[in-house]
Amino acid sequence: MNTDELVELGQQLRVDSVRAAAEAGSGHPTSSMSAADLMAVLLAHHLRYDFERPDHPGNDRFVLSKGHASPLLYAAFKAAGAIDDEELLTFRKLGSRLEGHPTPQRLPWVETATGSLGQGLPIGVGMALAGRRLDRAGYRVWVLCGDSELAEGSIWEAAEHAGHEQLDNLVLIVDVNRLGQRGPTRHGHDLDAYARRFRAFDWHTVEIDGHDLDAIDRAYGEALSTAGQPTAIIARTLKGKGVADIEDREGLHGKPLKDADEAIEELGGVRDLRVQVHEPPSVRPPRTADDGDLELPRWEKGEEAATRDAFGRALAALGTARGDVVVLDGEVGDSTRAELFAKEHPDRYFECYIAEQQLVAAAVGMARRGWVPYAATFAAFLTRAHDFVRMASVSGSGINLNGSHAGVSIGQDGPSQMGLEDLAMMRAIHGSTVLYPCDANQTAKLVAQTADLAGVRYLRTSRGSSRVIYGPDEEFPVGGSKVLRSSGRDRLTVVAAGVTVHEALAAADALEREDIPVRVIDLYSVKPVDRDTLRQAADDTGCLLTVEDHRAEGGLGDAVLDAFCDGRPVPRLVRLAVGTMPGSASPAEQLRAAGIDAASIAASARLLVEQAIVA
Amino acid sequence: MNTDELVELGQQLRVDSVRAAAEAGSGHPTSSMSAADLMAVLLAHHLRYDFERPDHPGNDRFVLSKGHASPLLYAAFKAAGAIDDEELLTFRKLGSRLEGHPTPQRLPWVETATGSLGQGLPIGVGMALAGRRLDRAGYRVWVLCGDSELAEGSIWEAAEHAGHEQLDNLVLIVDVNRLGQRGPTRHGHDLDAYARRFRAFDWHTVEIDGHDLDAIDRAYGEALSTAGQPTAIIARTLKGKGVADIEDREGLHGKPLKDADEAIEELGGVRDLRVQVHEPPSVRPPRTADDGDLELPRWEKGEEAATRDAFGRALAALGTARGDVVVLDGEVGDSTRAELFAKEHPDRYFECYIAEQQLVAAAVGMARRGWVPYAATFAAFLTRAHDFVRMASVSGSGINLNGSHAGVSIGQDGPSQMGLEDLAMMRAIHGSTVLYPCDANQTAKLVAQTADLAGVRYLRTSRGSSRVIYGPDEEFPVGGSKVLRSSGRDRLTVVAAGVTVHEALAAADALEREDIPVRVIDLYSVKPVDRDTLRQAADDTGCLLTVEDHRAEGGLGDAVLDAFCDGRPVPRLVRLAVGTMPGSASPAEQLRAAGIDAASIAASARLLVEQAIVA
Repeated sequence: MNTDELVELGQQLRVDSVRAAAEAGSGHPTSSMSAADLMAVLLAHHLRYDFERPDHPGNDRFVLSKGHASPLLYAAFKAAGAIDDEELLTFRKLGSRLEGHPTPQRLPWVETATGSLGQGLPIGVGMALAGRRLDRAGYRVWVLCGDSELAEGSIWEAAEHAGHEQLDNLVLIVDVNRLGQRGPTRHGHDLDAYARRFRAFDWHTVEIDGHDLDAIDRAYGEALSTAGQPTAIIARTLKGKGVADIEDREGLHGKPLKDADEAIEELGGVRDLRVQVHEPPSVRPPRTADDGDLELPRWEKGEEAATRDAFGRALAALGTARGDVVVLDGEVGDSTRAELFAKEHPDRYFECYIAEQQLVAAAVGMARRGWVPYAATFAAFLTRAHDFVRMASVSGSGINLNGSHAGVSIGQDGPSQMGLEDLAMMRAIHGSTVLYPCDANQTAKLVAQTADLAGVRYLRTSRGSSRVIYGPDEEFPVGGSKVLRSSGRDRLTVVAAGVTVHEALAAADALEREDIPVRVIDLYSVKPVDRDTLRQAADDTGCLLTVEDHRAEGGLGDAVLDAFCDGRPVPRLVRLAVGTMPGSASPAEQLRAAGIDAASIAASARLLVEQAIVA
Repeated sequence: MNTDELVELGQQLRVDSVRAAAEAGSGHPTSSMSAADLMAVLLAHHLRYDFERPDHPGNDRFVLSKGHASPLLYAAFKAAGAIDDEELLTFRKLGSRLEGHPTPQRLPWVETATGSLGQGLPIGVGMALAGRRLDRAGYRVWVLCGDSELAEGSIWEAAEHAGHEQLDNLVLIVDVNRLGQRGPTRHGHDLDAYARRFRAFDWHTVEIDGHDLDAIDRAYGEALSTAGQPTAIIARTLKGKGVADIEDREGLHGKPLKDADEAIEELGGVRDLRVQVHEPPSVRPPRTADDGDLELPRWEKGEEAATRDAFGRALAALGTARGDVVVLDGEVGDSTRAELFAKEHPDRYFECYIAEQQLVAAAVGMARRGWVPYAATFAAFLTRAHDFVRMASVSGSGINLNGSHAGVSIGQDGPSQMGLEDLAMMRAIHGSTVLYPCDANQTAKLVAQTADLAGVRYLRTSRGSSRVIYGPDEEFPVGGSKVLRSSGRDRLTVVAAGVTVHEALAAADALEREDIPVRVIDLYSVKPVDRDTLRQAADDTGCLLTVEDHRAEGGLGDAVLDAFCDGRPVPRLVRLAVGTMPGSASPAEQLRAAGIDAASIAASARLLVEQAIVA
C-alpha cells in the first residue's frame, strides 16, 4: 500500500472502531483511534499471517496488550477479511465472539486474553522465547502496549527477560497517547522517559510520531533488522485521533463517541478496504515427536522421600519421554527440585529468576505455541502471579504450576515462605485442577498425568521428607482419593492430604489402640474431589474431620463441601487448619502449634466420641 | 567511629551472623556477610534511631528488603544494645522474637515483614511518601535490597513511584553480591546494569565497593545531600565476605557455615562492640487530631445507587471527620469512586497509577506510620497484589482494600475485568475482614467501621446501581447479617450478599406468591460470618441455598460453612455461583447466564420443594 492508501486504512480502522462501540453502547473507541495508524502499517506491510491458518507455524504473533482497544483489533480482523462487517457490529453482545476484551477461547487469531493490563508483553516474551529457543521458527512477535500499562511491574520483568535473552524477534509498539483512564499518565508525551527505561533494560528503541505513516513503516523495518536486541517503538499519538472534538481530551476513556455519525463523517465515512496480509514463510513443521516410554522414578514403601524431590525426578523422566515438556524456574530450582530437569534437558529449561509474574506469563506464552510448560516456585510466591493465573484461565491456557514448601511444615523459615493460601487461590481458578500428594510415588504419577490435562494444573509439594506409603505401581487418577484405613465400625472419617496424611495415619493408629476405629482418606485430588468416596464415608461414619496444612478458608475443608452442596444430607464437619500466624520453629513444632499433628487429630476425635457427636 | 573501628564492627556483625545461624542450624549467614560493612557504616554513622523509642516520630526507618539476611539485622540490633547476646542465639527457635525472616509483630524495630523478595522497597516508598507528604518529618527511609530481588517487577513499580515523587528522603542500598539462591544473577557484578536502570527511573545513583568503608560512608553522605531524587547505592560485595573458603562461592545460600568456629576465628573472633546510634532529631509531634463529627451520606429507601458511589462518598465524609484517613488509587479512581475523596482531600490522596503491588505496598508503609489507608482498584486487579496482602497480614498491618466491579454483574467488559476470585483470596488472608454490601447506606456504614478494625479489611463493591433497601440509620455490625424475609413457615433459607441480595428478594417474592415462603439473609459480613443467625436458619428451615456473584470455591457458600464446622448438625446446602467463563453481555444477561439471578434462585428453590428435600 502507498501512503495514501495507508491513510485510508487507518481511517477505516478508526471508523470501524467508532461504529462497533456505538453499536454496542460501550467500549473504548478513543484508545483504538490513537493506535489505528500503528495497526494499519503493521497489517498492510509487516505482519506475516495467514488468517485462514491461525496455527500456521510460520505466522507472526500479534498481542494486543492494551486489550480494551479491542475495537481496533476487530476492525483490523475485518480489514484482513477474517470477519465481516455484520460480525463487527455484534461487538460486546451476548454470544458474540467479539468480547469487550479479546480472548483466544472465542477467536482463533487472538494469542492470549488481555484486559488486565501489563500482561500482553510478558506473555509475548514467552512466545518469542519459544520461537527462538524451542520452535526455532522465524516468526516475529508484535506486542501493542498502552503507555499507562508501563507502570505495571510485570512490564519490567518482561523487559528484563527479553533484554537478557536478546529476543530480536520481539517488537514492542507503545501507543503513547498520554491519557490513562482517569487522566494524564506520569510521563505524558515524554517519549524519552519510556525509551531510556527500555534502553536501560538492554532494548533497542525508536521514537516516532505514531501518526506519521512513513515513520511507522521505517520504525518497523528498523526493528526487524535489529539483531541481538528486542526493539521498543515509542510512538507519540493522540487519544481519539482524527476527530477534533475528542482528540487528546481527558474524560473520554472507555466511552462510545457522543455523536458517532458526525465523527464518522469527519473521518471520511465508512470504507471497505481489504488488506492482503503477507503470507507467512513456509517453515519446517513444528517439532516432530521424539517421544519415548515414560519411566517414572520408583520408591519402595517405607523409604523416606520429599514430594518435592519426587516432583523433580518425575519431571526429568517426563522430559525424557516427551519432547514437548518444558520447565520454567523462579530462581529456586534447587528448592523446588526443578533443577533435576535442567540437568537432563538444559535446552528445555528456562531460568526466569525472581519474577513470578514473568514465570507464569512465559509459561502461558509457551503453552500457546504448543509446548507443555511446568513452572515451579514456592507455593507462597505463586500468589505473586495470581492475576496471571486468573487470566490464563480466561485464555483457556494449559499450564502446569508447582508450588513447593507448602504449609507450616517447612519449619524455621517462618510465615513469609509458607504457602498457606495457595489451595484457596488455585481452587477458585476456573477449570483448574488442584493436586496435593503425600508421598513420592503418588507425586510422580500425578506429575505425569497433569501433562495432558486441560486448563491450569496445580501441584502442591512439601519441603520435608515423608514415608513412602504407596507402591510404585499404584494409580492415582485425578478426581480420585485413597481410603487408607477403613472398617465397618469406623466412628468418623479423617480427610487429609499431603503432610497431614501421615499425621492422620498416626492418629488413626493411636485411636485404634483405644478402640476408636476411624476411616482415613487421602484426598490427594483437592479439585476435582472424589464425591463418591466422601459421600460413602459420610453415610458410613456421619462425621468428617478434615485436617490441612493451610488456612481454614478455601482449602481442603471447603473442598470436601463440594461433595455435598446439591441438597443431599451433609455429614457433621470438623475442620483442623492453620488458624494462627506461625513463627519460626521446627516442622514438628509447627504442626503441633497449628493443631494439625497426629496428637491434635486424635484429641479432636476423642472429644467428638466423648460428646457422642460421632457414630 | 574511625575506619578501624568500623572494620571491627563489620566483622562483629559477620561473626554474630555466623554464630546465630550455627546455633539455629539454619539461616542465611553468607547473605548477611556480604552486607555487613554496609550495615556497620549505616548503624554507626548515619542512622538516626532511638531503640528505646521505636515509635519516635523523628526516627529514621530501616527496611531489610532481603529479609533472609535476618542474622545481620539481629546482629545489628545487638550491636545497638537492643537485644543481648543470649537472645541473639535464640534465632529461629520456637518462641523466639528472632524469626527466620523479621516481622514487626515480634520486634518493634522491624518496620515491615520481609522474606518475600521485592517487597521492602515498595513499602519503604510508602513510608518515605508518608514522611514527605503526610508526617512532614525529617526522617529518612533506608532500604537494604539484595541484587536478586531486583528482578521483581514490584521493585520497578516502586522505583517509578519514588522517582516520580522525587523522594530524596529515601536511600536504597543494593548489596550486589552476585549470587542468588541457585547461582549467579543475570548481571553478576555489573554494577552499571543496575545503576543505569535506576537512573532511567529518575534516581540518583552511586556505585561503590561495598567493602570499602570510606566509600560507603561517602556514598551515604552523598545520598543524604542529594535533593529532588531518591538515591540508589549500588555496592559490589562478596557473598560470605571475610571467610576465604566460602567467599563468592556458589551453592552456599541459606546454609549455616560448615565450620563455624574456624570461620569465627578467621573473622577475628567474638567481639562485643557497642554502637551509639545517633539520636533522632526532635520533631514536632505527629499529626494532632483535627477530627470532626462523621456525617455519612444518606440515601432514602427505594432510591437507586451503586455501592461504589456510596463507597466514594462515604470515604470523602470519613476523610472530613478524620484527619488520619488517606486514600490510594490504582488509576481507576473514576471507576472505584475514590476520586470523590480526592476532590475534598487532595493532600491525602495518592495516585499510584496502574501498579497494584505498589498501591498495596504504599498503603502498608503508610499504615506503619500511623495513617489509616484505603487502597482502591477493581476487585479483579487486587489479585495482582495478592502476595503483598499476604505479607501485610504477616506484618499485622492495618489496611483497607476496596475492590470494585465485582462479579459478572459488571456486564459487557467481560471476564478480565470481573472480580470472581477476590472473596476466596481475601477470606484466606489471616485475620482479615471481608465485607460485601448490597446497598448504599450499608456500604457507607461499613466504610466508616473498617477504619478502626485490625488487620486487612476488604470491602467489595459493585459497578451497577441497585435499590436502597435499608434506611440511613440502620446499623450493620461487622460479623452480623440481616434477615430480610422470615416467617415461621420458611421452607428454606437463601443466603446472599451484594447484588444477589436483590435477586434473592425478587425470588422470595415470586416464591411467596406460589406459597413457598423462604427466608432471606443478607450476609454482608462474609468474614467473620454471623454464626448465630445462620444456625438459627438451619434449625428453622433445614436447608440453605447460597447464591453469589463469585466462583463457587472460597466464596460465600464456603463462608457459610464456617458456622457449621464444629461437629454440630449441618443443614442441607445448595450453592449457586459462577461456574462458567463469562463473555460479554449485559448485567442482567450475565446474572441469568451464570444462574445466579432471581429466576435461577426461584427455580432451584422449587426443585428442592418438589423433591421434598426442604422442610
